[in-house]
Amino acid sequence: MNCADLLRIVRTKQPLIHHITNWVTIYDCAQVVKSFGASPVMAHAPEEAEDMTGLASALVLNIGTLSTEIIQSMKLAAAAARRKGIPVVLDVCGAGATPFRDRMSLELIDTGCISIIKGNASEVARVAGREIQTRGVDTAAVEENLVDIATGLARQRVCVTVITGKEDIVADGISCYTVRNGHPVMSRVVGTGCMAASVIGTFAAVGYDDIASAAAAGLCCYEVAAELAVSRSLGPGSFKQTLFDVIETLSDKEITSMGRIAP
Amino acid sequence: MNCADLLRIVRTKQPLIHHITNWVTIYDCAQVVKSFGASPVMAHAPEEAEDMTGLASALVLNIGTLSTEIIQSMKLAAAAARRKGIPVVLDVCGAGATPFRDRMSLELIDTGCISIIKGNASEVARVAGREIQTRGVDTAAVEENLVDIATGLARQRVCVTVITGKEDIVADGISCYTVRNGHPVMSRVVGTGCMAASVIGTFAAVGYDDIASAAAAGLCCYEVAAELAVSRSLGPGSFKQTLFDVIETLSDKEITSMGRIAP
Amino acid sequence: MNCADLLRIVRTKQPLIHHITNWVTIYDCAQVVKSFGASPVMAHAPEEAEDMTGLASALVLNIGTLSTEIIQSMKLAAAAARRKGIPVVLDVCGAGATPFRDRMSLELIDTGCISIIKGNASEVARVAGREIQTRGVDTAAVEENLVDIATGLARQRVCVTVITGKEDIVADGISCYTVRNGHPVMSRVVGTGCMAASVIGTFAAVGYDDIASAAAAGLCCYEVAAELAVSRSLGPGSFKQTLFDVIETLSDKEITSMGRIAP
Repeated sequence: MNCADLLRIVRTKQPLIHHITNWVTIYDCAQVVKSFGASPVMAHAPEEAEDMTGLASALVLNIGTLSTEIIQSMKLAAAAARRKGIPVVLDVCGAGATPFRDRMSLELIDTGCISIIKGNASEVARVAGREIQTRGVDTAAVEENLVDIATGLARQRVCVTVITGKEDIVADGISCYTVRNGHPVMSRVVGTGCMAASVIGTFAAVGYDDIASAAAAGLCCYEVAAELAVSRSLGPGSFKQTLFDVIETLSDKEITSMGRIAP
Repeated sequence: MNCADLLRIVRTKQPLIHHITNWVTIYDCAQVVKSFGASPVMAHAPEEAEDMTGLASALVLNIGTLSTEIIQSMKLAAAAARRKGIPVVLDVCGAGATPFRDRMSLELIDTGCISIIKGNASEVARVAGREIQTRGVDTAAVEENLVDIATGLARQRVCVTVITGKEDIVADGISCYTVRNGHPVMSRVVGTGCMAASVIGTFAAVGYDDIASAAAAGLCCYEVAAELAVSRSLGPGSFKQTLFDVIETLSDKEITSMGRIAP
Repeated sequence: MNCADLLRIVRTKQPLIHHITNWVTIYDCAQVVKSFGASPVMAHAPEEAEDMTGLASALVLNIGTLSTEIIQSMKLAAAAARRKGIPVVLDVCGAGATPFRDRMSLELIDTGCISIIKGNASEVARVAGREIQTRGVDTAAVEENLVDIATGLARQRVCVTVITGKEDIVADGISCYTVRNGHPVMSRVVGTGCMAASVIGTFAAVGYDDIASAAAAGLCCYEVAAELAVSRSLGPGSFKQTLFDVIETLSDKEITSMGRIAP
């Protein structure tokens, strides 16, 4: 896989990425998509869930500030996405924190319309059926091997599973990518996880022949940019602004020299 | 018209600008109003729509993340604004993307309470009755002359029409202003369009004897600030922060020397 | 009271701070908590209000963009917080602007579950029963002595009252702290008041043996950081980013040398 090639396709095709997401990081999700050269749209009314999805090349769902009404819109949008054949990313933000989040996550996954389940270790472990308590939206320690959890969930749900963390895992049930980019500062900035889901959606929108590989490429580009942004900023506030600047000008050379993606 | 004079009145009178707006750029809309020296408030509960509008000097509506409940609050607020005689700006964000957005935009316009309809080319063309598909919230190319569309809609609805773009058009059905400020970077920053509507509302709040002229003056000041911000920043992230800084200190001299506004 | 000691406990214990807050500054409230080294979570569905609160060490409520549904979730969360014995901060944002806000503020306070009522002068005066009109979310001048208002409300409601302003007042009905830090720039940045409530919640979460003292310590640390951020930034946009950077590295020495807190 060539991450730089896929980034070039994103910038050329400028795919429309529809979001039904949370109210905390909704701006950042939109801006990260735009900085990568694609076109974000965010809308949550059930009356237009299908029509808006019909215009898009990928759908990103995030349950960070979920409500029953929002989940209904997500289901309508996810079904429309499946009918159209575009990838659907579900960020199971906060799964494992409350039974309501677990139930809603599973209801969405049970629709069979989710292409990529994404979360931190304890969020994904929870939707994979493990007994674990996520601390709000911060991961809890997971004892079990994360590649096994990701691969098992990918096989069970016939989807791609992404576990983000110090080392990101992208499993499709057969192969498994690891991305070793990023920086600890990211964990001190609200929204870096939500933005990762939007980036995955953006790359999957143009790399639909292999969405696991596209997801890994997206994470690699995003986290290389984050490393560059850390080196040019002073803390979490200036980091985020710098990140948006860096993403826009991210070069082949930076990706090739800094990207650490395997296998 | 003297843009600098109107800016001075905004800073002196500090009008209260009430918003019922979207969840993506709600912070930026508030901050841009505050940076111009006015006072923003955002509230969407139907129970207080009329009371909050009753305190304000202008009302800004934006359908970016609309729902049927929010539209109801907008109608209550718009009616209260009309009774009070303050200007109402409607940003028809995403009109032309889905039938629901088109219908809700027209329902709001049909109330007869909208003073200024604002959007990009395809959004305004759509509410003016043209068959055109907006790409999420990004404009589609419009073949027809934009001044004709803006003027036609202004006459039909007895309102001011603003089409933002590389060159902004402000039409009241008789005269037409063009504003040739701004910078391409703005199209790569989420929220620049929404902020424009808030700025229009802020200037219309103090320039109610000629709201077309006030809208053009507001756009001119905002976009002069944007040009200055581009020259002092490195990309979309740092641009937005710098924009808020620049607006606060925008001077008569900068407006006079850089403003490119024509009747 | 030693502010630096309490900050050290926040950074060590990393308490989870649950929020049901407004859509304008929700990101900033989360980031300020994170920058102080604690862990924010924001969720407003009634179905999980009690469960999420059950995980938290403090609850922060803010009625900035209230709705009747949100108020119901706040009541459920506040009751769960009381059962668990964790502090509940209520930011009566915009009280005095509309009768709806006044009524909802009082309904929340009447539950008996609020530990800390926080607002600007006219907001707090209004919930203390004075006839005063808040200008949207900006304070109106209050003639009466603010310490008297704060102390009276604290006694009446058996809670802590915080009035923020040029000089912050923290009253528990017996003693009263004043914090004389901060900078006028803060009033030109949207969200500085909302963030103050989140900081109060964060410090109260670890200083529950004396929440008035903890609230004052939190305000002092936050406003010392703001003073430092002003000296390192160019205006309201760059201020906020710098503030997040500064908070993360705020030192004992800075707090001790700059903090101006008096019982």
